Amino acid sequence: MFEEILQNVRLKKPLTHCITNYITTNDCANIVLACGASPTMAEAEQEAAEIASQADGLDINIGNLNSHTVLAMHRAIAAANQAEIPVVLDPVGAGASTYRMETLRDFFAQYRFSVVRGNVSELLAVGGAASNTKGVDAGAADAVTEENLQERVEFFKQLSAKLGAVVSVSGAIDIIASPERAYICRNGHPMMSCVTGTGCMLSALTAAYCGGNPDNILEAAAAATAAMGVAGDIAYQKTKEQGLGTGSFRVYLMDAISLMDAETLQGGMNVEIR
Amino acid sequence: MFEEILQNVRLKKPLTHCITNYITTNDCANIVLACGASPTMAEAEQEAAEIASQADGLDINIGNLNSHTVLAMHRAIAAANQAEIPVVLDPVGAGASTYRMETLRDFFAQYRFSVVRGNVSELLAVGGAASNTKGVDAGAADAVTEENLQERVEFFKQLSAKLGAVVSVSGAIDIIASPERAYICRNGHPMMSCVTGTGCMLSALTAAYCGGNPDNILEAAAAATAAMGVAGDIAYQKTKEQGLGTGSFRVYLMDAISLMDAETLQGGMNVEIR
Amino acid sequence: MFEEILQNVRLKKPLTHCITNYITTNDCANIVLACGASPTMAEAEQEAAEIASQADGLDINIGNLNSHTVLAMHRAIAAANQAEIPVVLDPVGAGASTYRMETLRDFFAQYRFSVVRGNVSELLAVGGAASNTKGVDAGAADAVTEENLQERVEFFKQLSAKLGAVVSVSGAIDIIASPERAYICRNGHPMMSCVTGTGCMLSALTAAYCGGNPDNILEAAAAATAAMGVAGDIAYQKTKEQGLGTGSFRVYLMDAISLMDAETLQGGMNVEIR
Repeated sequence: MFEEILQNVRLKKPLTHCITNYITTNDCANIVLACGASPTMAEAEQEAAEIASQADGLDINIGNLNSHTVLAMHRAIAAANQAEIPVVLDPVGAGASTYRMETLRDFFAQYRFSVVRGNVSELLAVGGAASNTKGVDAGAADAVTEENLQERVEFFKQLSAKLGAVVSVSGAIDIIASPERAYICRNGHPMMSCVTGTGCMLSALTAAYCGGNPDNILEAAAAATAAMGVAGDIAYQKTKEQGLGTGSFRVYLMDAISLMDAETLQGGMNVEIR
Repeated sequence: MFEEILQNVRLKKPLTHCITNYITTNDCANIVLACGASPTMAEAEQEAAEIASQADGLDINIGNLNSHTVLAMHRAIAAANQAEIPVVLDPVGAGASTYRMETLRDFFAQYRFSVVRGNVSELLAVGGAASNTKGVDAGAADAVTEENLQERVEFFKQLSAKLGAVVSVSGAIDIIASPERAYICRNGHPMMSCVTGTGCMLSALTAAYCGGNPDNILEAAAAATAAMGVAGDIAYQKTKEQGLGTGSFRVYLMDAISLMDAETLQGGMNVEIR
Repeated sequence: MFEEILQNVRLKKPLTHCITNYITTNDCANIVLACGASPTMAEAEQEAAEIASQADGLDINIGNLNSHTVLAMHRAIAAANQAEIPVVLDPVGAGASTYRMETLRDFFAQYRFSVVRGNVSELLAVGGAASNTKGVDAGAADAVTEENLQERVEFFKQLSAKLGAVVSVSGAIDIIASPERAYICRNGHPMMSCVTGTGCMLSALTAAYCGGNPDNILEAAAAATAAMGVAGDIAYQKTKEQGLGTGSFRVYLMDAISLMDAETLQGGMNVEIR
């Protein structure tokens, strides 16, 4: 599973256009490079459409909006839709402010997305369900557990149908759902939530993987999540062995993505299909 | 000293809203996570008040102003003051430009701050004294030394009374002053000034500690400074032993904050009360 | 060669004003600190001129323009030109968008630059030659090779005469050209292109070196490139020995710049003059 997805990224080096938040943009650019793709982070309204139309994949992250970036996002998404370039949307902090919810509503009304990726609270908010988002972090009450897993899988399959997009939900248990099929991934470590931007990085990685595999979006999104999870496992192991903390964990996470190959991924991942 | 301060942060996981500069915002978010709190970095004028009013602590850093962030800061501080949420102000580069001094003047005229934290040149500028600021770094002539320490302590106690805020001054010798009492901290290493954002990170950490300890602001601010200083000592030791440079030092500094507990802090800190 | 250049930076600690993109600004500030200079990253139009006129060197990087930063750049460059402070221009992504080309055209029409530093695709675009830029990365077809080296050297010497600026071109083989003389540097490793911002960092380093050596711009620019290349060699060696990836490489690159001295530079660099 996923060998071809990874190979296509390394071979095609998809140009991945990210309009994201400035908090984690450096990590997003670095993870796109680490997986073998090429990032461009242009967000000026004057050039967003021109840059997006040259790209292979587009990552839209609403973690730090302002009126200029919102305008740039509109132009970039419209250009990507017209050129049929995959678009990944990360609804960071959905539910935390009216401004974000209104921006999302506009996006869903006007554009098509290939993947919507976020934490469970954000996706619940996108889906119109009750959500316990805390700033940009998922609320504990929303977590996907072994107990509510089947129910959550059904909910996100339906949400995928409703949005016309693959829904990629990250947490202790990840769900990557199309209307018919869901990948469930049980990799990664809680330390990933002690480093800012691991979610943003996964969205950028997903856009790079989709850019390299435009005809295989569900598998590309699932592979990105699995790769990030396995990288988290590897990074945690190294950090713990050496008695280090979150600063080193972040470095080792990037290392693991840059060293990720099909064999490492296969050997480490715990993925189920429902 | 400070056991309870640290414990409250780990237990309460205070939501810490930072409106800061984009140069060091990633480090600020990461240090808030490393100490056990939860960061949100929203700075759009459209949502700053809404986000701030949900937070436990607010960090305002003027290191890279523009008219939009200044407006967002006004709204966030006003909302925090109304909700009685602690606000930490970092007057980065005060004295280096007219724009920054005017912004500060507006802030002090309209709002209450719990802590004003900066380097000695910035705090001298805030206090209306002669200041030798060099860009965003303290001028050598302004340094707190064993010789001028008592005089500086008195000056900052008076400035604390004038501002109605704890004054937290960082340097080789740190002073954290209320009108009646000052903590003096002699931890940390000059290598901290060879990494950008250690000051910004300390302000974010102070906001997180205050967010977890809103009834104990002076001790929270002193504990944050002591923790940062001890982390600097630990990081320098590791960097030196391994013959590494400022890149590794920065990683080890974050590690040390993420691993900081009451025992490490007690064992390492050199704190005096005057 | 270059001993005095490095020494002047460590002694003068030039205040280096960078108006750059927010993707790599943290790395730019850190590399300025690592080489012994002092960074200030102010980009508000309200203060850009005031800050620039206090600086020893100015770095202008167009990697993420918007109308506000363009205005700030105009004011800063004008102030630096008036005060005769060296200005380094990094035309990131030149050729990738009309907006960037128009901004560059305005800059060249109105101001003097000490150094224009970029990858070969960007400099070809600046020189009006056919360019195969891919987002912000150089196109493979544009690469400087042993075969086309002499031809490229002549082209960039002529471009230097035309622009009235030293032209510093980075790649597997670096060329740093004045109208009469070119330094050719064969250091560094391809892994440098797997970390975002190594080009931006080199521009900031060049501005710091020029700030410390305003009467010796060609040598300062060449020394910065040589130092970065040698640092890349050292960082790659450590990364490979330990079986690590791009995250660690980035940390070791910063370490190597912070530990760089004349002896290390002399021992490691491979520099030729034509």
